[in-house]
Amino acid sequence: MSLLVVGSVALDTIDTPLGHAEDALGGSAVYVAVAGSYFASPVRMVGVVGGDFPAEGIEFLRGRSIDLEGLEIIRDGKTFRWGGRYHTDLNVRDTLYTQLNVFENFDPKIPPSYRHSEYVCLGNIDPVLQQKVLQQVEAPKLVVCDTMNFWIERKYKELLRTLRLTHVLIVNDEEARAIARESNLIKAARDILNMGPRAVVVKKGEHGALLVTKTIVFYTPAYPLQEVYDPTGAGDAFAGGFVGYLAKTDDRSDENLKRAVVYGSVLASFCVEEFSIGGLKALTEGQVTKRVNEFRDLSHFDGS
Amino acid sequence: MSLLVVGSVALDTIDTPLGHAEDALGGSAVYVAVAGSYFASPVRMVGVVGGDFPAEGIEFLRGRSIDLEGLEIIRDGKTFRWGGRYHTDLNVRDTLYTQLNVFENFDPKIPPSYRHSEYVCLGNIDPVLQQKVLQQVEAPKLVVCDTMNFWIERKYKELLRTLRLTHVLIVNDEEARAIARESNLIKAARDILNMGPRAVVVKKGEHGALLVTKTIVFYTPAYPLQEVYDPTGAGDAFAGGFVGYLAKTDDRSDENLKRAVVYGSVLASFCVEEFSIGGLKALTEGQVTKRVNEFRDLSHFDGS
Repeated sequence: MSLLVVGSVALDTIDTPLGHAEDALGGSAVYVAVAGSYFASPVRMVGVVGGDFPAEGIEFLRGRSIDLEGLEIIRDGKTFRWGGRYHTDLNVRDTLYTQLNVFENFDPKIPPSYRHSEYVCLGNIDPVLQQKVLQQVEAPKLVVCDTMNFWIERKYKELLRTLRLTHVLIVNDEEARAIARESNLIKAARDILNMGPRAVVVKKGEHGALLVTKTIVFYTPAYPLQEVYDPTGAGDAFAGGFVGYLAKTDDRSDENLKRAVVYGSVLASFCVEEFSIGGLKALTEGQVTKRVNEFRDLSHFDGS
Repeated sequence: MSLLVVGSVALDTIDTPLGHAEDALGGSAVYVAVAGSYFASPVRMVGVVGGDFPAEGIEFLRGRSIDLEGLEIIRDGKTFRWGGRYHTDLNVRDTLYTQLNVFENFDPKIPPSYRHSEYVCLGNIDPVLQQKVLQQVEAPKLVVCDTMNFWIERKYKELLRTLRLTHVLIVNDEEARAIARESNLIKAARDILNMGPRAVVVKKGEHGALLVTKTIVFYTPAYPLQEVYDPTGAGDAFAGGFVGYLAKTDDRSDENLKRAVVYGSVLASFCVEEFSIGGLKALTEGQVTKRVNEFRDLSHFDGS
């Protein structure tokens, strides 16, 4: 099935205790699309970059068979740039700079050839823009949506409107608590189910991920890595693996949502093993399947 | 198999957002012994209380078939008292007071009838005292040990000596990192395996627990409770369920250690559902088995 991905395309400069990357390919749409490209087909991307966006970036995305008709290039503008530094505790990072550039006035235009996309993944852009995207897509089978504290604080009403159009909300634990205004995470997730989505996926970083629907609660741990090189994009790689797997299998049952959470976790685990999108550049089906099985073993125990 | 439990016996005064308990039965030895009493037999306890320790406390422990020959009662002394207040985020608590009283000079004496105990669980007392206990026990099959930051900071060398006599170390994530002086939790656990223990169990509170041996890594989530009444003692209830299950089954294989982690998680989940030891007062085998199965479902997914 087809997957439409809308979000930021960026050039990231990243410092972690294990190294440095400069103007590396990044942004939520890139991570989601690249991770999703291992499963869904075609993958269609909507985003905006400036004339400074490197040709190798375009080539790489094309090489992953990602349709870039919806990638707007503003020749006389500059690409969105983000700089961040991670602490020894990789859960803590300082944003060194955010240069929105052409992303500041991002106005997603969905090309006619994208309008029948069956699976849609909306990055954490303004909820008004998320709705605008959905108005341009015809009856998608599944809408997966992300958001962030910035919008929860500033555009709560608009976010609630987006949630009513969303099937699966993917957020981190802090965002889930903020949306529901509830500190207990399970209650918060169930409260969000009453706002529209039929499933909530809560990303908990090194503590794994949680899936809550009306009838199930499902946990998957994070992959036990000894070295995390760069946590940037892990959440978006998760979303891409998740929605990509659903698009590939075209099965939106609770049981398959569980498997999708595992595939999301697998893609996130590969993502953090290298800088930028390095860990997602050339995965084989065998590597992915092996890691899915490792995830199964991680929390499997035989009967008492 | 027999289980020997050594640690604090206390009267706790606890404030949580959902209520208040005054001079309630507490202390690590109490939680471990009570949780362990659902599996191991006999359970033997070594601790110290003052003349003010309530008769109902003694009766309750006897009612759980816990052997109290090793519970020293200092008639003219006062029992260890702790007061704490939990925030809305139950991961944060303020200690309001700590009155060590008779526990300050705790000098564990193992009665002769306890010396052949097969399973031993040492609470987070001074590592010198932990060693003293082990000198009084004859070749136990399994020594499970807890510790805390206070000892890691002040008696690191003595703690290392205790670790060489320990089969399973149970600590929280912060303690594991501090012992190994390593921020990556998986690496920290593996480093600790080189200090003596053949298994490390890391308790991560609401994020579940992690078991690491030379050959496996195993995760279990925390039970998804909508209301946590009182987190006090959850870690000790975990240890009691864990070591109690091992004593009952007398199987120290990696596969059985996994199951023991699940039983520990189950007892911890019952513990936090009521104040003090209320949640551990009268569990049935059916309740425990049902929750073990719920834990299995929580992270089980069918093949892709």
